[in-house]
Amino acid sequence: MIMEKGISSVEVLPSKSSQVTAVKVVVKEPETKQTQRGKRVGFVLVHAGAGYHSESKAKEYKHVCKRACQKAIEKLQAGALATDAVTAALIELEDSPFTNAGMGSNLNLLGEIECDASIMDGKSLNFGAVGALSGIKNPVSVANRLLCEGQKGKLSAGRIPPCFLVGEGAFRWAVDHGIPACPPGIMATRFSLAAFKRNKRKLELAEKVETDLIQLKKRRQSSEKGSRVMCRTCGRPSKANDGSRGGDQIELYSLENDSGTLDTVGAVVVDQEGNVAAAVSSGGLALKHPGRVGQAALYGCGCWAENTGAHTPYSTAVSTSGCGEHLVRTILARECSCALQTEDAHQALLETMQNKFIGSPFLANEDGVLGGVIVLRSCRCSAEPELSQEKPTLLVEFLWSHTTESMCVGYMSAQDGKAKTHISRLPPGAVAGQSVAIEGGVCRLESPES
Amino acid sequence: MIMEKGISSVEVLPSKSSQVTAVKVVVKEPETKQTQRGKRVGFVLVHAGAGYHSESKAKEYKHVCKRACQKAIEKLQAGALATDAVTAALIELEDSPFTNAGMGSNLNLLGEIECDASIMDGKSLNFGAVGALSGIKNPVSVANRLLCEGQKGKLSAGRIPPCFLVGEGAFRWAVDHGIPACPPGIMATRFSLAAFKRNKRKLELAEKVETDLIQLKKRRQSSEKGSRVMCRTCGRPSKANDGSRGGDQIELYSLENDSGTLDTVGAVVVDQEGNVAAAVSSGGLALKHPGRVGQAALYGCGCWAENTGAHTPYSTAVSTSGCGEHLVRTILARECSCALQTEDAHQALLETMQNKFIGSPFLANEDGVLGGVIVLRSCRCSAEPELSQEKPTLLVEFLWSHTTESMCVGYMSAQDGKAKTHISRLPPGAVAGQSVAIEGGVCRLESPES
Repeated sequence: MIMEKGISSVEVLPSKSSQVTAVKVVVKEPETKQTQRGKRVGFVLVHAGAGYHSESKAKEYKHVCKRACQKAIEKLQAGALATDAVTAALIELEDSPFTNAGMGSNLNLLGEIECDASIMDGKSLNFGAVGALSGIKNPVSVANRLLCEGQKGKLSAGRIPPCFLVGEGAFRWAVDHGIPACPPGIMATRFSLAAFKRNKRKLELAEKVETDLIQLKKRRQSSEKGSRVMCRTCGRPSKANDGSRGGDQIELYSLENDSGTLDTVGAVVVDQEGNVAAAVSSGGLALKHPGRVGQAALYGCGCWAENTGAHTPYSTAVSTSGCGEHLVRTILARECSCALQTEDAHQALLETMQNKFIGSPFLANEDGVLGGVIVLRSCRCSAEPELSQEKPTLLVEFLWSHTTESMCVGYMSAQDGKAKTHISRLPPGAVAGQSVAIEGGVCRLESPES
Repeated sequence: MIMEKGISSVEVLPSKSSQVTAVKVVVKEPETKQTQRGKRVGFVLVHAGAGYHSESKAKEYKHVCKRACQKAIEKLQAGALATDAVTAALIELEDSPFTNAGMGSNLNLLGEIECDASIMDGKSLNFGAVGALSGIKNPVSVANRLLCEGQKGKLSAGRIPPCFLVGEGAFRWAVDHGIPACPPGIMATRFSLAAFKRNKRKLELAEKVETDLIQLKKRRQSSEKGSRVMCRTCGRPSKANDGSRGGDQIELYSLENDSGTLDTVGAVVVDQEGNVAAAVSSGGLALKHPGRVGQAALYGCGCWAENTGAHTPYSTAVSTSGCGEHLVRTILARECSCALQTEDAHQALLETMQNKFIGSPFLANEDGVLGGVIVLRSCRCSAEPELSQEKPTLLVEFLWSHTTESMCVGYMSAQDGKAKTHISRLPPGAVAGQSVAIEGGVCRLESPES
């Protein structure tokens, strides 16, 4: 295996838009050349979320990414396929109390945990997803089981197996398929409960300020007899004339969603057969409405995996993180996958983040567009093209990119002793929600039989 | 307004694939030319599902499509925008006991009704959706309210408003926003309850046959000592060697999903300002697992609407129907919308249905690919180009296409006295799930002020 380490750089690329900056990918020459024959190969890239990762918690974030990589690689070394390895990585990420997925997820308005997760298999192109799922420690394991059951064909009486289940029905299906229910109170952690209490207090204060503002406005309006702009669909006051939302005073009471609590987790894997898989898991936004489902459960939005095919020269796998609504409306995972079929992966991803995410007409009314992706693409090629075809290798290009202040990633190949981890940050002066950071590397895997 | 009627034809186009046939669109010359000044304009196209519509029920299906068109046109004539009009059409379709949406929806495994619905506004590009929603008579009204609330900007304390809610949380949100709960037992009809009982009986018979088959296989295997292919993800028998699913004997007990019960409903509208909107609503598959969410709730899959923009010369609106899992995995609504930006709408839609739906690598393992779409695209142009620009008109092209045996549609413009309805059927000899029917027409709307 030849490993060409991905190195972050501070070089800022010129950009079409002045609001967009990008960190250039620098791929160093291989540091070591060692051929390990007869061993299983594969590669994993994980993320512990795009958001803001404080220096004080950096160690924990890196540590959980490292462990997640190791779990995936252990599976690959034992001969597991990509979906199995990516699930193992996700379970580790979900089990960490520091991430907003599985254990320690954000609590919703009612103080409950409802999780979204999905997985996609690049080989079969099957997909499994759960939304607003409570009472299961590892939502990704239910998503993976849905995917697996879906591959078995139709159910009795010709019924089509579900690929997406939500709420109580998803919980019942999981338990019926042998996935244990998690006792109540286990999944909320000291951190998540404390954050819930702080957020609830902020919400109460914000609502009080809003109520005062509305009353003040009403008094002003009745004295001015000003006309109000009403929403033509529901007949209520429209944003243009309704100060009850988004006022400057209320910014003071914004929730902790724009900091570490956006930490959706995910992973992308390529296995020894060249199959790719991707998965994602999230506890969703803090104080979300019960029943709210975000990108982590949605096809094309949370993750994407597609093996090479007739019209796709590269196998691609993508996992996203950030503000669910932004990632949904841009169908970002699939958008990245499509873009990665062009020659220059780095340029394709940068343009996608600039034009299809920050510059998307679907998010034109947003103040800032918050999200991050990890991507992997692979293709078979000869290690030394001038030689014969006897040494086919798997060229794996991997990248991460985000518009949030930071993103924590880890990566590892089956021949590495340990994972590398990194907290990627926007360059100094760049504005979160309006700027893009992009980094990555290349890894060349020899076929185990070669 | 000049109306160029869309006429179905039996002319079969040659096709690249021998399995695919297509009915050619024939656009007749305008039958009447009448200019009506000062009136509001707009156009609606609705569907009562792609599936199988028996001749015996044809009258009812056509009748509900007609009423739905009229409701939408009444709204447009009263000055409502496209989202309002499309919601009005959907409510009428949901209220019909003959369609699989709202009232009379398919019952799930537990005998409950859980509905999916979504709406998209081409002007704001906002989206609202509900999944697995019980206890609300008109799921589309909740989706529309989510869309409307989303347009008001952030909630208190900077919270992002949800665009997709499921299950109990969706129900609570609806009731909290003034949408009345529907008393239990109202939504199931005589027809849906009878179908549920028939399907339950078929399921029991199918499961009995399966159990017998499994026992027979076990006995054979233990005597042959044959090895079994196990699923590498969950460790259970894989499809290749597991006769418990999809056997010929079981076909006898297939549920009524492949007949009329796929009748998801939907509509697409263009209003007097040229804004487009699309909506879709479904009760889902018969005997689906509780919590199963299908394409009608999913972004890009159930409906799509996008006004003309910098990179989109046409405004497009799409609504889909059919097997949810097939429509989800091909993200068919958005796929059609993208395709419709090329010059020839008919050719673009036909190629999309052939290559991105029936021929999709994402559905390569399916026996038949079942679905249908209604699409509308519009652009501003001069009625008589050689004259001055004083008479801008809105050119509306509308099409429907399906791979199912039939699809029931209706359409109407704001100047029409009544709606036209049609049950489109595959040409004789064409195989459902492998063939495409496509029909449509063109309508030219004069600007009301011209």
